[in-house]
Amino acid sequence: MRVIGIDPGTVNTGYGILDEENGKLTPVTYGVVTISSKLPIEKRLFNLFSELNKIFDVYKPEEVALEEPFVAGNVKSALAIGRAQSVAIIIAAARNLPISRYLPNQIKQQVANYGMSSKQQINQMVKIQLGIGENIDSEDATDALAVAICHINESHISRLA
Amino acid sequence: MRVIGIDPGTVNTGYGILDEENGKLTPVTYGVVTISSKLPIEKRLFNLFSELNKIFDVYKPEEVALEEPFVAGNVKSALAIGRAQSVAIIIAAARNLPISRYLPNQIKQQVANYGMSSKQQINQMVKIQLGIGENIDSEDATDALAVAICHINESHISRLA
Repeated sequence: MRVIGIDPGTVNTGYGILDEENGKLTPVTYGVVTISSKLPIEKRLFNLFSELNKIFDVYKPEEVALEEPFVAGNVKSALAIGRAQSVAIIIAAARNLPISRYLPNQIKQQVANYGMSSKQQINQMVKIQLGIGENIDSEDATDALAVAICHINESHISRLA
Repeated sequence: MRVIGIDPGTVNTGYGILDEENGKLTPVTYGVVTISSKLPIEKRLFNLFSELNKIFDVYKPEEVALEEPFVAGNVKSALAIGRAQSVAIIIAAARNLPISRYLPNQIKQQVANYGMSSKQQINQMVKIQLGIGENIDSEDATDALAVAICHINESHISRLA
């Protein structure tokens, strides 16, 4: 099973693609799509749409895991994240791929066994679980890999149940 | 010039298409795309994407006017409206159409000359300005026609300036 994890944002959108076979996780690719915040919002969303589409075309993920933002209290950022999330959802839905959404502390719990883990702890756990030796520079790419791991673990649990 | 006005929502999205020639406004079509709130969000956004795409295919608007929501204080509805707005923005941007966004009181000011107009006043003014005799059943369609009128008036002002 090939899973793409996505952490959507209107400036930085992290993505991470993993293969799972018999419980073994292999990283395929990961990175960040950065869209200049100086562009008008319509250009930004459309550029994000085009870039993410290319990634789906090339790597052909079979399932999609999205980080569901925790946006308590901030209306402006909720509007912005809703827009970016929608881009990822439309691309996945247009390809008829199943989409799962996970909250930040659910992801942390699955990846590091603790819902309040720090960014650094998550980074370490992602690298260990995927056997990635080099540093993962981008926090958004790390978060995207984490949500992909979370999704694979959750799917595994629901298959056993 | 053919303008489509859109009032985006995750359940009801109003649309209204107008032709403008030498200051004369002619309504082309208007209506509402309703997507069941019982569907998961990814199906809803994709259905909205497909339906709006069909409307753009058939009527080929040249400019797009969006109602920019006023969402003070409500994070959940900001996230939802951001998602729906993004669908309309991606469709317009993919066709390389100029997109303008207007706030509710800016629309009311342009259409009824008063930023605090009631829904009923806007409905009356839209019908009078477009010469629509029948009742416009949907509030969302009315709002979409109103944002299209607002855009045409604003464009006219900026051409004169």
